Amino acid sequence: MIKTDILIIGAGPTGLFAVFEAGLLQLKCHLIDALPQAGGQCSEIYPKKPIYDIPGYPEVLAGDLVDNLMEQIKPFQPGFTLGERAETIEKLDDGSFIVTTNKGTKHHAPVVAIAGGLGSFEPRKPLLENLGKYEDNGVAYMIKEPEIYRDKKVLIAGGGDSALDWSIFLADVAKEVTLVHRRNEFRGALDSVEKVQQLKNEGKINLITPAEVVALKGEDQLEKVTVKNTSTSEETDVEVDNFIPLFGLSPKLGPIANWGLEIEKNAIKVDNTYDYQTNIPGIYAIGDVNTYPGKLKLILCGFHEATLMCQSAYQKIFPDKKYVMKYTTVGGVTGFDGSKKEAPKAVVKAID
Amino acid sequence: MIKTDILIIGAGPTGLFAVFEAGLLQLKCHLIDALPQAGGQCSEIYPKKPIYDIPGYPEVLAGDLVDNLMEQIKPFQPGFTLGERAETIEKLDDGSFIVTTNKGTKHHAPVVAIAGGLGSFEPRKPLLENLGKYEDNGVAYMIKEPEIYRDKKVLIAGGGDSALDWSIFLADVAKEVTLVHRRNEFRGALDSVEKVQQLKNEGKINLITPAEVVALKGEDQLEKVTVKNTSTSEETDVEVDNFIPLFGLSPKLGPIANWGLEIEKNAIKVDNTYDYQTNIPGIYAIGDVNTYPGKLKLILCGFHEATLMCQSAYQKIFPDKKYVMKYTTVGGVTGFDGSKKEAPKAVVKAID
Ligand SMILES: Cc1cc2nc3c(=O)[nH]c(=O)nc-3n(C[C@H](O)[C@H](O)[C@H](O)COP(=O)(O)OP(=O)(O)OC[C@H]3O[C@@H](n4cnc5c(N)ncnc54)[C@H](O)[C@@H]3O)c2cc1C
Ligand SMILES: Cc1cc2nc3c(=O)[nH]c(=O)nc-3n(C[C@H](O)[C@H](O)[C@H](O)COP(=O)(O)OP(=O)(O)OC[C@H]3O[C@@H](n4cnc5c(N)ncnc54)[C@H](O)[C@@H]3O)c2cc1C
Repeated sequence: MIKTDILIIGAGPTGLFAVFEAGLLQLKCHLIDALPQAGGQCSEIYPKKPIYDIPGYPEVLAGDLVDNLMEQIKPFQPGFTLGERAETIEKLDDGSFIVTTNKGTKHHAPVVAIAGGLGSFEPRKPLLENLGKYEDNGVAYMIKEPEIYRDKKVLIAGGGDSALDWSIFLADVAKEVTLVHRRNEFRGALDSVEKVQQLKNEGKINLITPAEVVALKGEDQLEKVTVKNTSTSEETDVEVDNFIPLFGLSPKLGPIANWGLEIEKNAIKVDNTYDYQTNIPGIYAIGDVNTYPGKLKLILCGFHEATLMCQSAYQKIFPDKKYVMKYTTVGGVTGFDGSKKEAPKAVVKAID
Repeated sequence: MIKTDILIIGAGPTGLFAVFEAGLLQLKCHLIDALPQAGGQCSEIYPKKPIYDIPGYPEVLAGDLVDNLMEQIKPFQPGFTLGERAETIEKLDDGSFIVTTNKGTKHHAPVVAIAGGLGSFEPRKPLLENLGKYEDNGVAYMIKEPEIYRDKKVLIAGGGDSALDWSIFLADVAKEVTLVHRRNEFRGALDSVEKVQQLKNEGKINLITPAEVVALKGEDQLEKVTVKNTSTSEETDVEVDNFIPLFGLSPKLGPIANWGLEIEKNAIKVDNTYDYQTNIPGIYAIGDVNTYPGKLKLILCGFHEATLMCQSAYQKIFPDKKYVMKYTTVGGVTGFDGSKKEAPKAVVKAID
């Protein structure tokens, strides 16, 4: 059982910044995310695109924003349960919660902050017979540990940035990379498309287009996929260890919709007059996942909501303590790792 | 008469960021500030100190944050009335407002956003007879245009960062710089104190300590100040063109307190359930200057409040238009100066 002060569901920008604000209050956080990496939409959908409305950043790449947030929260040593979806919640008699993931990992905390964005990112799966049989036996929809593909024969399907970028990356790791797409045209960053063209020319990526995977074969473990050329209708079996269809991830509010929370327009209603708490005391919802009159699904709004939520969580966890806010410039930032950041002090010094 | 869409009172971080959010909605802004420069508390009180809780910035100097905000809003060409205090407000029959400063400058706008922080920064003045007579005739409490001191004889009084930093700066500009402080010890950044020591050693700054200015002399224009050594009680006349007492600026809510706005704890009550509007429709209050249940006087909260305020202002100014929010990453940022920032587009390109 993982124990923490604030259990955060969703490691997007909102959840990440909550770790910082909680840390200033000496509260520890643990984050659960269905994705294999932190950053939410910023990392999953547009890591290499610039955002222009982060206050104080005339321009910042979404991926860099996430890196900076990770750096900012480092002193507060958050825990992560990645690649797992928060599935069920149970309220104990003392008012605290146990949240269990789809893989059975259990988390216990007095406060739960749902920072689930548009929902848990779930892969779009191809329609193939036996698909379920090979999941975790050769078929995967996200790449969590690139190293497991070392010296393997990998077939990737898809025509967007993920398919391009992972083909490029795995060309250096895997024994064989085959990229299958139902069109000849790919849609992505220019340099990714050009790099795949080059690797194909060098024989480091096998390209099969226009084509699609139509069948999976193998005893228990995946052994072959059948690829059909969609212009000639010709079918070929390709020997593979791994089949990774990268058809995009789409967010689904999913199990959280059944936690007894008030839902409106696919989002969780919160009390925006005070602390972004939901109808269940002790459960907050911050960032894109919540709704209230005038709500804007913007990153900067999530930051504010996370900050006010932490103040309220502090009151809930320490009902008898009175917290006196200190500016970070004045009080510094003391990490759980013993680190201390502090403004240089003014000196009092005679001039003679 | 200066005309604009949103008239912002206070050019601190909150007011500055409001310009950006308004600009995304194609609304023009004009800012009034009592200080000679933008940036509010960040520029006036702690420009060289790090802030640690700006989301996405593990550390940023307050002065750099202001510079970045100025850069971010540049495409939206805000107007500035600096060094003047917003004094009176008048509501016209059409619901729009005229705001007049202490220097008589008039501004007309359908929406007013008060981003006045802790109030208008007003100088602490020394207790001297005739002080008023010499104001603008040799005596100043802030430095708006350093160039007006070129080749002048300047006497600065004070023992903090402003006194140190302006003495250093003017040592290169003025004919003569005299620094008077009632103690031998100065309080400020180590390098500023050391630099003044060095300039004093080189004869570029006359230092008189422990001492204070006790009288001002001159026909209409300031000609001499009498400096009293506080340990020997000896008095000396020093010939000067300018006397600049830098005893710090303290914020005063000031005239805004009499505008008929609901005030609580020296701050303006706003509707935090929606748009940070005050009890007077069309007047909003954002950032440190407002109060509501759970209010935190933090920069990041001001950013959020400014953003929601702009949405509401847009509705007020264009009641019949429906605004559809576009992410900056998707829609780009189109400046009033014709500039356009845009994310690089994905290509659709065949690989053969
Ligand atoms: C193309 C694009 C451009 C954008 N441009 C801008 C812009 O310019 N400015 C701006 O402010 N915003 C922009 N946005 C929106 C911005 O990315 C979101 O507002 C922001 O990511 C929301 O952050 P969040 O942390 O609330 O949620 P998210 O980033 O959505 O993160 C939520 C995370 O929670 C996880 N999760 C949800 N439910 C569960 C569960 N049950 N178990 C485990 N994990 C779960 C998800 O997997 C996800 O990783 C853009 C979005 C897109 C798609
Ligand atoms: C030493 C110190 C350290 C701090 N550290 C942090 C930190 O680490 N993190 C953080 O988030 N915050 C910190 N703060 C607080 C932060 O600076 C404020 O929250 C922020 O400046 C508020 O911004 P604002 O734009 O609302 O108001 P302000 O910055 O106060 O700006 C308001 C402006 O309005 C002007 N004004 C007011 N009334 C009038 C009028 N009638 N006419 C003309 N002009 C007027 C004032 O002159 C001023 O320039 C710190 C503050 C101090 C003093």
